[in-house]
Amino acid sequence: MIKAAILGYGTVGSGVYEVIRKNRDIITDRLGEEIQVKYVLDLREFEGDPVQEVLVHDADTIINDAEIAIVCETMGGEHPAYEFTKRALESGKSVCTSNKELVEKHGPELIKIAKEHKCSYLFEASVGGGIPIIRPLRTSLAQEEILSITGILNGTTNYILTKMENEGLAFETVLARAQEKGYAEKNPDADILGYDACRKIAILSSLAYGKKVNFEDITTEGITAITAVDFAYAKKMGATIKLFAKSVKKGDKYYALVAPFIVGPENPLYAVKGVFNAILVNCNMGGETMYYGKGAGKLATASAVVADVLDCARHVGKHLDIRWEEQKLEISPIDGAVRKFFVRVSCTDEAKIRKHFGDVEMYTDIVAGECGFVTEEMTEAEYREKAAKFGSVLSMIRVD
Amino acid sequence: MIKAAILGYGTVGSGVYEVIRKNRDIITDRLGEEIQVKYVLDLREFEGDPVQEVLVHDADTIINDAEIAIVCETMGGEHPAYEFTKRALESGKSVCTSNKELVEKHGPELIKIAKEHKCSYLFEASVGGGIPIIRPLRTSLAQEEILSITGILNGTTNYILTKMENEGLAFETVLARAQEKGYAEKNPDADILGYDACRKIAILSSLAYGKKVNFEDITTEGITAITAVDFAYAKKMGATIKLFAKSVKKGDKYYALVAPFIVGPENPLYAVKGVFNAILVNCNMGGETMYYGKGAGKLATASAVVADVLDCARHVGKHLDIRWEEQKLEISPIDGAVRKFFVRVSCTDEAKIRKHFGDVEMYTDIVAGECGFVTEEMTEAEYREKAAKFGSVLSMIRVD
Repeated sequence: MIKAAILGYGTVGSGVYEVIRKNRDIITDRLGEEIQVKYVLDLREFEGDPVQEVLVHDADTIINDAEIAIVCETMGGEHPAYEFTKRALESGKSVCTSNKELVEKHGPELIKIAKEHKCSYLFEASVGGGIPIIRPLRTSLAQEEILSITGILNGTTNYILTKMENEGLAFETVLARAQEKGYAEKNPDADILGYDACRKIAILSSLAYGKKVNFEDITTEGITAITAVDFAYAKKMGATIKLFAKSVKKGDKYYALVAPFIVGPENPLYAVKGVFNAILVNCNMGGETMYYGKGAGKLATASAVVADVLDCARHVGKHLDIRWEEQKLEISPIDGAVRKFFVRVSCTDEAKIRKHFGDVEMYTDIVAGECGFVTEEMTEAEYREKAAKFGSVLSMIRVD
Repeated sequence: MIKAAILGYGTVGSGVYEVIRKNRDIITDRLGEEIQVKYVLDLREFEGDPVQEVLVHDADTIINDAEIAIVCETMGGEHPAYEFTKRALESGKSVCTSNKELVEKHGPELIKIAKEHKCSYLFEASVGGGIPIIRPLRTSLAQEEILSITGILNGTTNYILTKMENEGLAFETVLARAQEKGYAEKNPDADILGYDACRKIAILSSLAYGKKVNFEDITTEGITAITAVDFAYAKKMGATIKLFAKSVKKGDKYYALVAPFIVGPENPLYAVKGVFNAILVNCNMGGETMYYGKGAGKLATASAVVADVLDCARHVGKHLDIRWEEQKLEISPIDGAVRKFFVRVSCTDEAKIRKHFGDVEMYTDIVAGECGFVTEEMTEAEYREKAAKFGSVLSMIRVD
């Protein structure tokens, strides 16, 4: 029997407890031994909940119990999760977490500590909720050079964009409804400004390229400027608008960006609707693979934590290696990134547009007094220069 | 350094050699040591190809070399692949394969031999080409009860159906063009009759449910009866037609089926176009996840074999456990499976249709003298009985 503890009996923590309890027989069968949750740490009491029997209020009970081989850190936030994780790893206990903030900030350090103490620090649930992506990157794609990762990594924004597309509504209207339904937070900034997706692509890019990508280095734009008119243009193009979190290796340069993109139906991410997430990985040998599922939610996220628990249980006394050095990966300025741009201008003089922007694809008759067009490929710097010179740009969305 | 051998220098075998050679640095970095291909077994000579230096014509050289830790079996077919695999495992060498025929037939036996000799038998490449699916089933979903698997597992048929949909062409026309382009074999029966997809869903279902699913027990229908008119109806429904390979756990019963299905846009498999494959897995805790990529092709398949090689290299002297007992899984007769049916009848008498089939959704005005409708949910047996009584059924396609 493998004994485990859960730090934090919130949404994810209680989900972890539920998955281990409900799927006990399956887990025991597949693993060859039972996983028992010996402790759950929480400051609160849960009268009437069976968890009460294993509830403790002091982390020391868990850290000092040599029987505990695996700790699930489902507290979230940086402190005291960081200190508890560090102490658990230092006592040779593997830690499985859903805490993307901690992973993004201290991942390489905690992996190193785990390695020194022959245990593991796993964090499948920190990106993409219930979608297996971190383990596939580490195992199924270990033989590949990863050329790019493009993710729809935030369910709230994808839900809002899907609703805007389907119902022709304004961003503010859909956001308000999403808040009513609990699909968006009261303070939705972390989602709608792209910060959540940014942290997640920082983690995935670090794993893909082996060095630390700081989320502060990633240019991040949210979806707050996207309008119903933008969707009308996208529809005319046979396309849609998605918030992409993206990183690309081009020669010896790395680019990263979180921003809305115009996406056509030939891209498998085009069909990812509502709160679902997906990650498209492009490799130098096997080409494109995509991973799709629920990017959030109690049981989906908890299930991913428990997958890590089973992996640790299969490798007790052994470090599951994750290549993620503390050395910083240099992210090149976005100026050099090459792509097409969809531009709306308060001008309908096609000749003038072509003189400035080159051989563009025009979209007219959507709104009086303006038009939209898709440029040829150019660098971000070139686009910015042209746009500044042209002057009457209403909005720009990058084209994937 | 880990030493490996490749059995068979055909399409996949030469791809394995290429992936290991081209991505040598990445593999060495991630694994912490180099993988060297010491031998390639093939009866032919390859003058001018660097493989010539490591080419051998006798399997004994490989089996008897204690230095060889891992063998890639990329010969295909049952014999002598079976004998070579068995002997390699018996000498403690792990075997990684793309050979779905061998895996489907002898998987449980070979896994058992591997276990006895503290080595592994891995076969990621045998299903879904370059799509990570077998490893995610074994690791990322080990904590889950799997409720259903639905796959687009054959690229040739998905290519044909996509072309029929996009261009309104007849099956025979598209097949002939696909054969010209090399997307379909000269003898395309294994693909178009569903046999290839059937073997693959047999493997996936065995892994999902832990016992042996024999492909002979799976009702299998191909795509040869699908017409341009069927696609016209599908279009009117806002849907498409896909060849699904499917297995479902319902209570203590298991159903399995390979057949064309009407698929709506709310299903993530709807958007899987052309030669791409995808597998949708539904679990009791985390819900739906989907895995998408190239289902075939030299480098995609080879890359999956090399992923297995790395897994074995990380676990030398250890058996990577795969739950797949030799005990047969009872597949229930399809009669009891419940779903909706799309039916075309040479009759336009709506009252008569409703009298026989109940509250149906009608689609008229596609072809004179006939109409189509979607039934309510009923068992396959109920449908068959109603259809036989009604008499003038032109065709039926199941609805997902």
